[in-house]
Parts: sequence; C-alpha cells; structure tokens
Amino acid sequence: MFVVMQEGADEALIDAVIERMVMKNFTVHRSTGVVHTVLGGIGPEDDFNPAEFEVMEGVKECRRVTSPYKLASRSFRPGGTVVRIGKVEIGGDRVAIMAGPFAIEGESQVEQTAELVARAGASVLCGGVFRPGAMALNPDEPTLELLRRAAERRGLLLMSEVTDHTQIPLVSGHADILMVGAHNMQNFRLLAELGKLRKPVLLQRGASATVEELLVSAEYILTGGNYDVMVCERGIRSFESSQRYILDVSSIPAVKKLSHLPILADPSQATGRRDKVASMARAAVAAGADGLLVDVHADPGAAGGDSAQSLQADQFAELVAQLRTIAPALGRTV
Amino acid sequence: MFVVMQEGADEALIDAVIERMVMKNFTVHRSTGVVHTVLGGIGPEDDFNPAEFEVMEGVKECRRVTSPYKLASRSFRPGGTVVRIGKVEIGGDRVAIMAGPFAIEGESQVEQTAELVARAGASVLCGGVFRPGAMALNPDEPTLELLRRAAERRGLLLMSEVTDHTQIPLVSGHADILMVGAHNMQNFRLLAELGKLRKPVLLQRGASATVEELLVSAEYILTGGNYDVMVCERGIRSFESSQRYILDVSSIPAVKKLSHLPILADPSQATGRRDKVASMARAAVAAGADGLLVDVHADPGAAGGDSAQSLQADQFAELVAQLRTIAPALGRTV
Amino acid sequence: MFVVMQEGADEALIDAVIERMVMKNFTVHRSTGVVHTVLGGIGPEDDFNPAEFEVMEGVKECRRVTSPYKLASRSFRPGGTVVRIGKVEIGGDRVAIMAGPFAIEGESQVEQTAELVARAGASVLCGGVFRPGAMALNPDEPTLELLRRAAERRGLLLMSEVTDHTQIPLVSGHADILMVGAHNMQNFRLLAELGKLRKPVLLQRGASATVEELLVSAEYILTGGNYDVMVCERGIRSFESSQRYILDVSSIPAVKKLSHLPILADPSQATGRRDKVASMARAAVAAGADGLLVDVHADPGAAGGDSAQSLQADQFAELVAQLRTIAPALGRTV
Amino acid sequence: MFVVMQEGADEALIDAVIERMVMKNFTVHRSTGVVHTVLGGIGPEDDFNPAEFEVMEGVKECRRVTSPYKLASRSFRPGGTVVRIGKVEIGGDRVAIMAGPFAIEGESQVEQTAELVARAGASVLCGGVFRPGAMALNPDEPTLELLRRAAERRGLLLMSEVTDHTQIPLVSGHADILMVGAHNMQNFRLLAELGKLRKPVLLQRGASATVEELLVSAEYILTGGNYDVMVCERGIRSFESSQRYILDVSSIPAVKKLSHLPILADPSQATGRRDKVASMARAAVAAGADGLLVDVHADPGAAGGDSAQSLQADQFAELVAQLRTIAPALGRTV
Repeated sequence: MFVVMQEGADEALIDAVIERMVMKNFTVHRSTGVVHTVLGGIGPEDDFNPAEFEVMEGVKECRRVTSPYKLASRSFRPGGTVVRIGKVEIGGDRVAIMAGPFAIEGESQVEQTAELVARAGASVLCGGVFRPGAMALNPDEPTLELLRRAAERRGLLLMSEVTDHTQIPLVSGHADILMVGAHNMQNFRLLAELGKLRKPVLLQRGASATVEELLVSAEYILTGGNYDVMVCERGIRSFESSQRYILDVSSIPAVKKLSHLPILADPSQATGRRDKVASMARAAVAAGADGLLVDVHADPGAAGGDSAQSLQADQFAELVAQLRTIAPALGRTV
Repeated sequence: MFVVMQEGADEALIDAVIERMVMKNFTVHRSTGVVHTVLGGIGPEDDFNPAEFEVMEGVKECRRVTSPYKLASRSFRPGGTVVRIGKVEIGGDRVAIMAGPFAIEGESQVEQTAELVARAGASVLCGGVFRPGAMALNPDEPTLELLRRAAERRGLLLMSEVTDHTQIPLVSGHADILMVGAHNMQNFRLLAELGKLRKPVLLQRGASATVEELLVSAEYILTGGNYDVMVCERGIRSFESSQRYILDVSSIPAVKKLSHLPILADPSQATGRRDKVASMARAAVAAGADGLLVDVHADPGAAGGDSAQSLQADQFAELVAQLRTIAPALGRTV
Repeated sequence: MFVVMQEGADEALIDAVIERMVMKNFTVHRSTGVVHTVLGGIGPEDDFNPAEFEVMEGVKECRRVTSPYKLASRSFRPGGTVVRIGKVEIGGDRVAIMAGPFAIEGESQVEQTAELVARAGASVLCGGVFRPGAMALNPDEPTLELLRRAAERRGLLLMSEVTDHTQIPLVSGHADILMVGAHNMQNFRLLAELGKLRKPVLLQRGASATVEELLVSAEYILTGGNYDVMVCERGIRSFESSQRYILDVSSIPAVKKLSHLPILADPSQATGRRDKVASMARAAVAAGADGLLVDVHADPGAAGGDSAQSLQADQFAELVAQLRTIAPALGRTV
Repeated sequence: MFVVMQEGADEALIDAVIERMVMKNFTVHRSTGVVHTVLGGIGPEDDFNPAEFEVMEGVKECRRVTSPYKLASRSFRPGGTVVRIGKVEIGGDRVAIMAGPFAIEGESQVEQTAELVARAGASVLCGGVFRPGAMALNPDEPTLELLRRAAERRGLLLMSEVTDHTQIPLVSGHADILMVGAHNMQNFRLLAELGKLRKPVLLQRGASATVEELLVSAEYILTGGNYDVMVCERGIRSFESSQRYILDVSSIPAVKKLSHLPILADPSQATGRRDKVASMARAAVAAGADGLLVDVHADPGAAGGDSAQSLQADQFAELVAQLRTIAPALGRTV
C-alpha cells in the first residue's frame, strides 16, 4: 500500500501515519517528492481498508497495491480456467450456450423448450432462475426433477439457481451447475457454503457491483476450495431507462485481463425484452464471452406476465446461427 | 395502464394489443390522436409487466397507472406513520438518533459506546450491523446479550441486523428493531418472514435500488401484516468515487411524498469515512429525515481495520448539538 | 399527454388540472378508474414540460405521449437513412470504418496513418478530433490542409471536429463530414448552425445523455433542413472505473428502433485504452452499428501522453479482418 | 506517479516501463515486494496520462500522486477563498443567497421578482440563466439592461450566464458575476477566455462530472490569473428518475476538503420541481454550502412551460427563514 501525504503535511502528521502503518505490520519506505511525501508500505493488505488511513489528518490518499483477491486473479492461472463437466467445457474454444425457460410453468413447457434448445445447439438447460423483482419462490423438488428429466433426455447439463444457503443440498442434488443470482452476489454466507461444495458455480454480477467486487465475491467461493467458478455479466444500473439494465459488454475483456475465470453473459435478464436480446448476445460473444445464458420459451406469447424477455424457437435458432458466424473471428466455435 | 401505439401502426397491430389487454382482464378505451393511438386499460395491474406489451409489434410504450405498491403509498395513510416502541416514537416530531458500534469488538467497547451515545441523546443503540464487503459473520447469542444488557442499563432500545430468514428467531429474541441491510433489500424470503413478525423493521435501501423499488420491498413486509416498517437511505452507487456511496438526500423528500413510512438516513455506511459523516447527517435532518443511524466508537483510532467510519465521542456529541439547532427549522426536536 | 391524479384527489384539484390543460390547448378526456382518475390530453406537446403538472397539488404523474423529436423518429423514414458522400454510403449494407490519428502531431504521422488505414479498408480519415479533458486547441487551417491532402491521396473522405459555431466555415471548407464531440452534444447554438449547412454531420452522444436526449439533439440539426445526420455512441459514465467510460452497446439497437438515423460507435474514446478497443469494436458491429471511429497511430509507442487509446497498424488490420468475419452474421460487409 | 507491475512480470517488461518513465522525465525508484514490483516516479505529472503506462505489457496499474490541479487545491490557500464584490462576500461567514427568475419573460416579471428576493434577503439577482434542454437563446442587450436596472434599484449584484466565449464582452458589461452552466463545464475555450477576465465566475458542475473534473475546469480559469472563481453543485445523473438530477450534497464537503474555492448549490435546476427545492436547499446549507442559487418567480402558476422549478414568493421567504435557523449550527448567518 502507499499513503500520499497532503502538500505541507508536517512531521508530526507523517509520524502518526508511519506509526499506524507499523502497528498494522507494514514495513515503511519514505519518499520525499517536491510536492508530496509518499509512504510506501510493504506488508499484509488482506484485512486492510485504505479509508482507515485516508481519515487521518494530513493524508491525501491511500491505495492498495495488491488486488483484494488472489485466487481469482489472472496471475494465479495465467492460462485461464476451463470448467469441465462431462464432455462440456466452459472457458475453452467453444462458446457455451445455456438456455431454457427461466421461469417454469409446467412439464410441457419444460419439455418443449428443452427439445428446441437442444436442437439449436445449447449444451446446458437453465431453469428455475427467478426474474428480478419477482416474488422469490424457492426451488422445489418436483420442479427440479422435471428439469432434470428434460435435460437428461437430450443429453443436456442442468443449471439451476440456489437462492439461499439452506437450498444448496436440494439444488445440488439435481443440478450440474448452481447459479448465484445477481441479488445474492454479496450473500457471503451462501458464497462460503458454495466454497465447500465440489460442483461448478456460476456467479452473476450484481447490478451495481464493480468488476473488482465481482471477483472478490468469486474469491469467497474459491477460498473454500471450489475452483470451478464462472462469473456472468448480467447488466448494470445506469441512468438510461430504455432498457432494464445496461449489459456492460466492456466487463468481458476486463474480467479476461484481471482473472482466469470464465465469463459469460446473460442478455435476457439484462435487457428484459425479447427485441434486444439477440443484438446483445452477439455483442457479448464478439467481445469474447465464454458463453451465454438465454431465456427461451416454446410459446412466449401465451405465457404469463413475465415472458417479455423470452426468445421464441425461431429467434433462438437464428441467434445461434449468427453466433456460429461470429465466433470464428475470435478463433472459436459455438 | 395505457399503451401508446407507434405512429402509423395499422389496425391489425392495434387489435392484437387490444386482444392481449382483454386476455389480461383489462377493459380497453381507445383514443385516436393526430399522431398516436392510445389504448387505456382499466383493470388489475398487480401482476403486470409493461415490457410484455412493449415487445409487441407496433407498440411505442406501455405504462402502469397505479404504483406497484399500495400499503406503502402515502394515500394509504395520508397523515404518515409513527412507529411507537415504548416511549420512543419514530416518524413524529422528534428526530430519532440511533447510534452505536456497528461492528462489535467486545464488552468494554459496547458498554463505553452505549454510555456515550445515551448521554449525547440517542434513543436507540445499533450494534451487530455488518460493514458492506466484510465477511458476513452472523448474529450470535452472546453478542446480542451483551448489546441487550448495554442498551437496557441506559434505557436505550436495541436495533440489530438480521442477515437471513433463519436468524429471525434469534435476533428478534433480543432486539427491539430488526434491521435489513442494503444487500438484503430484495431478499424476498427474508422480507416475507419479517411480515409475519410483530416487531418494527428498518429496511435499508440497496445501493442501486430506486425509491420505487425500496417501497416495493417495504410492501412485502406490510403485506404480511407487519405495519411497523421504517425505510433508510444508505447511499447509492454513482460515478463519483470520492466517497463509497452518494447519500441520496433527495430520496428523503421523495419518500415523504410517495409514502407514509418514516425515512431515516445512514451517513456512516454511505460515506464510509468519519470526516464526511457529520455534514451528511446534518443534510439528512435538514431535508426532513425522521432519524439517523450513526456509527460511533469510544476509541476508533485503536480499533480494527473497519473503524474509518466511526465517529469519536466528541464528534458525535458535537453533531447532536448541531442537529438540535437545525431540527427546529422543520418544527422538530432532537 | 396524460395526468394521473393521486388516489383520493378531490374535484377541486382535478378541476385545477383540467383548467391548466385547457390553458395549454389540450382537449381533455377524463377517465375514472377504481383507484385513480386519469386525464388524457390531446394537443400540442412540443413546448410542454410534464413537471409543470407534476408540481400541482393532487397530481401523481404526468407523461408525454409523443416523443420529444419528430424528424429523428423511425416513423419519419421507416426504411432508415443512408448518408451518401461520393461513393461511400453510411447506414447501408456496408459497415463504414472511419479511422485516423485523433490527435495530430505532424505531416509524417498523418501521412503514414492515412496510408495504413486506407490499406486496411477504412473509407473515412478522422483527424483533429480532440481528446476529452485535453486543452481544446481549435481546428486550424494548416492542420486541416494537411489532413485533406492525406485523405485525397488515398481516396478517403475526411471527417474533422468542429468545436464551436465560429469554426464551421473553416472546418466545412476542408472536411466532408463535421463531427460534434460529446461535450458539445447540447451546444444548441452549434447544432442550429449545423442545421443550416448542407454537409453530413456526425453527432456524438454525451457521457451522461440518454438515447432520447441524443435524438433531441439530432432533431435540432434536422429541423434546419440538414438531413445527413449520423449519431455515434461514445461511452457513458458509470460507477465502473476499470475503463474511462462504458461503451453502451445497447444504445445501438435502441437507436435503430427509435430512429432512422445511422448509428456508429467510437470504442477508442469510450475505453481510452488500446487493449480494450478491439473487443468493443467487434461488439458494436455485432450489435448492428453502421460504422466505427477508430483512433490509429503509425507509431503510438513513441507518441505523446495521449497515445494510450491508439491502435497500432497491425492491431488495426487484425481488427478489420475480424469485422469482416462478423459482419456477414448481420447480412453486411466491411 | 507509481506503476505497479503484475505478479510475475519479468525483467524485460519492468525495464521497458522504466525506460518509458525516464523518457517522460521521471526519476525512478524500484521497490520489490513479495507479490508486486512497484516503480515510483518522481517528476512532472502535469501532462501525463496513467493509461499510457497501463496499456504496457506487464503493468497492473498506474496512478498519479499529485492532483491534476494545483491552484484550485486546498493547499494553495489553506484558509479558503472569500470572493468579495462590493459589500457582498462569498465563502465567508454569511451564506449567500442568489435568486431570481432563471428564465426571463419581461420587465414586470423581473421587477417584481427582484423586489421579492431582495426583501427576503438575497444579495445577488440571477437572471438569464437557461434551462437545461431548452433551446439556447443567447444573452441579449435589452434583457441584460433590464436585469441590471432591477438589480441596482434594490442594491443587488447581478449574475448572468455566458453561453459562449463570444458572449463574454456583452455579459461582462452588465453582470457582476458570470455564470458558466453545467453544459459548458468542459468548454475549455470559454474557460480560458474567462481566465483573462477580472470578474468573478461561478462554474457549475456538469451532470456527469466528478468533483476532480470540476476542479480541473476551475483550474483553467485560475491559470489565466482570475482568482475569483466559485464552483456550484447542480445535480448529477443517476439511475433514480424521481427527480431530474440528484443534487450530490456530498460534493460540498468533498470540495471543501480538496479546494479553497467557495462552493454553492443550485437545487432548482437539480430537482427541476418546486416541491423538492426547499428540502434540498436546506440540506445544502446544512452540509456547508457557501451559498444557493434559487429560481424564484413572482407568479409561477401563470408562467410558461418552464416554470415547474420556480419558487413562489411565500415559499422563498419561508425557505430563507428556515436557512436562518439552520446556518448558526455551522457558525454562520444567512
């Protein structure tokens, strides 16, 4: 870490900062510039909050040098992580398509949708994911069984959301990948419990979380010894109200630079409307995303009030075809 | 609700929208303007998502007419709600000061801090509230007992955070007010369980939540029959990085206009630093806040890495004195 | 327009609103719902501010029905606008690449860069565009002549920035397209003067402007009779600090839906750094952008302090090759 | 400045960074930590962009040590600046009230409003300030003369907006203070010309500008030798749409800490609606603002479409009375 003293800060103020640095187990190097004295601290930054120094008199600024995450950082695995589940690889050359009915209505809807996404080229069935703002129904056994059967019949993996640490045993009993929704990105108890699991986890970025905070949350899972973590851009809050959230496409190269973890994108929940999903899905893959989550519904017109974001069968098939054209520009396939 | 059709939308498109409105149990009134056809729908807006209509061909815009909350709206109790707990009233003429050590270190810290906040004029002791970004320790019995004793000795009420629906029995056994932190504002299961309780709840606004979303979350608690709900501005995410969050002071008059619920402010967690707490606390009271949450520590200099936001004894006493000057401008006392 | 009255608003309040609507030349239709009275107003919304009604007692909400722009709206030209300059078409099947040294250092830099961008496939040379935050040097004759010569030698068009209405004669004497930078998006005098010109204008979106505000600004130019207007996404301010701005890729389909104007993207100024430009450029084209602005420099390593965003020759050539793979997914070429 | 190298960056990469630092005239100090090598650079940071280093291979982060402004920084005048114009002082013990009809309708409106703001206790008449989003009429001689007369008759100073560098001679011929609107905060040519003037300037913060950027803009004026600069918080863009902008009250203590310049607030343009002005005005003064800009209109109900933000006579008088109660909490008067 380093502390930049304000211009004209006197020796007593500088000494007080040095004393506190030493108390916090930092070795201090002092550098006197024309304008500012800078105190460099070599030591443990794990449990350290720069604001603690910035509220001291005479301090202009305090900054960390190390990232607030280690296991999630690129340098931990410079070659990148590939999460392998059966014959599916996420983070490798092939862009993973995860699709399904985010909100479950019944067996026929699940079966029809599983069939159409499998045919179009998806490798993972997503289901039981709750819409933002909706009353949180919790995962239940019959729905998970229904999803499991529909996935297995088509050779798909199953990803389902876990909304609470108490739901882990139930969901992990049926799903291949556990999803943590955006609202739970900083549910640290849930993250800690998922760290003890040995199943892949997909962690969605909160709508007001920075990329750094997303990686800090991933670190909580990795710290428990569960290394099969994927992160997912799900849209951020902005002043622009023409869409629910802004899919922050730039987070994709940002995560790629900072971390070895696979990064996916969820254009369905980000935009909240069918007519914007395909363009944002193409953008995410063109920017380098390792996969997509797409809400698909065999008959969205007939569905309940939440269907505005679901692609229809033909729209989904057309999107996958477009992605197959785009992916080779990055040396990848779909 | 109403649907504005795009300029030049033909009859077939208009009919499709009308058909869907009728399917959703709306009575439709059609109005043909020079530029746009507008379809007004009278009917149930509870379970209705405007995006469902906006993705239809030929539709320019769809809007609700009613608010997405009812029990939380001003019209439900035009005179405003006063939450009464013993002799403390929140939402009345007196501005409530809730203060204490947000992070608990031990008995002597709690006792000293309880003593100083009681002397300065606080009516509620806050403790066991977790810092954003910190590893979520859960509430535990010994800490809650320690806080309870410290509060009772000084005639203070106790407010403590409940981090999870499984923690409600424990925390409600000791605290007079249960706090829902910003990260949990849309933890709908927790909200639903708190609705069944008959104890006051203070609900913090999430860092990227609109005022409307905050009131929708409050509605989840009210719906269960628990009417003693207070909301609390805790800072929003913005592009300005000079403070952790921006305390959105303008949410205070906004909530006052839209809702009957008391609104408080938490300048400590919003700013994250001691040197900005007092100015934002004064601003919140001047804007009409019904109370404040203030992190206070008998000896913050000596404390752990999280102490940057805690006011010292003399700073807190000076702040309360300033608030006593300000409150009469609004016809209130502190 | 519509006015939604608050629940329980009495007749006197309703009458006052009706009176004001009539004063503003609206024909009023009253609709009494179970909860709210809604007053529909048919009439002139051009010079009308909904807030004027929202501050009236008893009013819950007031909304426009028409868009605040007309000539810029999709319905004005449902087929979309193609801007034609010589043999270059912007908004048609071919994605336009505009590239060059955004900051000019001298003749050899301009000549080398013009040569390399022409070879890689650009059709427009951009130059004399100022970096955000930099001291605004104004366009000068010698620089414009130098750019003009470099463009003409390679059969490129020239786009240059106009920073002020007093600069229009000078810049329009040399450039084929006049660019309005993000900081000037709401410089209404400049926009009005450009409306009188008969030369294409590229209007950049301000960093905190909504898509609607961008189109309102375009409307100022169109109103003057200059229909060759293109808009350009240049990044928006957000809480995420890992890049200068967030390129709001979702604005591309949003503009396509709302307007007939061509929409381009400027990933160089949005990201501010070379290592993020290519991924965001690919994303913009995949989302449907009609063209790109790319900062290119023959030797960025040797350049001044502002060179962090300039692509090198090989990086630019590789990017164009990738775009040639991507564009066919949308039925386009590069 | 500092460069933090990525974990595992090899000597060749480190050497390349050192070489570039030396090229940029920095003296380099190398510090080898357990995880990261840090390169400290002592030298000229004026014309230096950290991104230039951050795009180099092996670099994790680059940071300035000095602020990007000098004359505007607190250390330049630790005691703070008081701008004196006649007997009015801004930045001293008395909170300055600047009020008037932001949009001018005619002589009787100006005279009546000047009379009422003078009686209520304002010291500066504001007029000819344009509403955001409105067609920019330029200042004209007759309007300025009318404002001047109305101000002089009541012993008020006059502040008027300058929209363009070409307008400086006209406006400075009549007004005592020249206002730069939020849209022009980064109109560097205007700022440079105002630096040559010897008249006070009030610079409004742009809706997406950081506090640092505001102070950099102030620096442009100060650099020209004009030291009578005041800055003004005017609201920032956020995701919250219940008000036009969020008045960022926290910028007031932030500017106070970083700079010696007086800071005022403009709640009228920030909120855009009369019913929110008073609460935000009180908040700004309670947070430490040196003054307020308030839109007042003798008869706003009768006025044109832009009147939603204007306070009526009685509302303004009541606000000033409230401020007189609040100011003593900060040792000030109104």
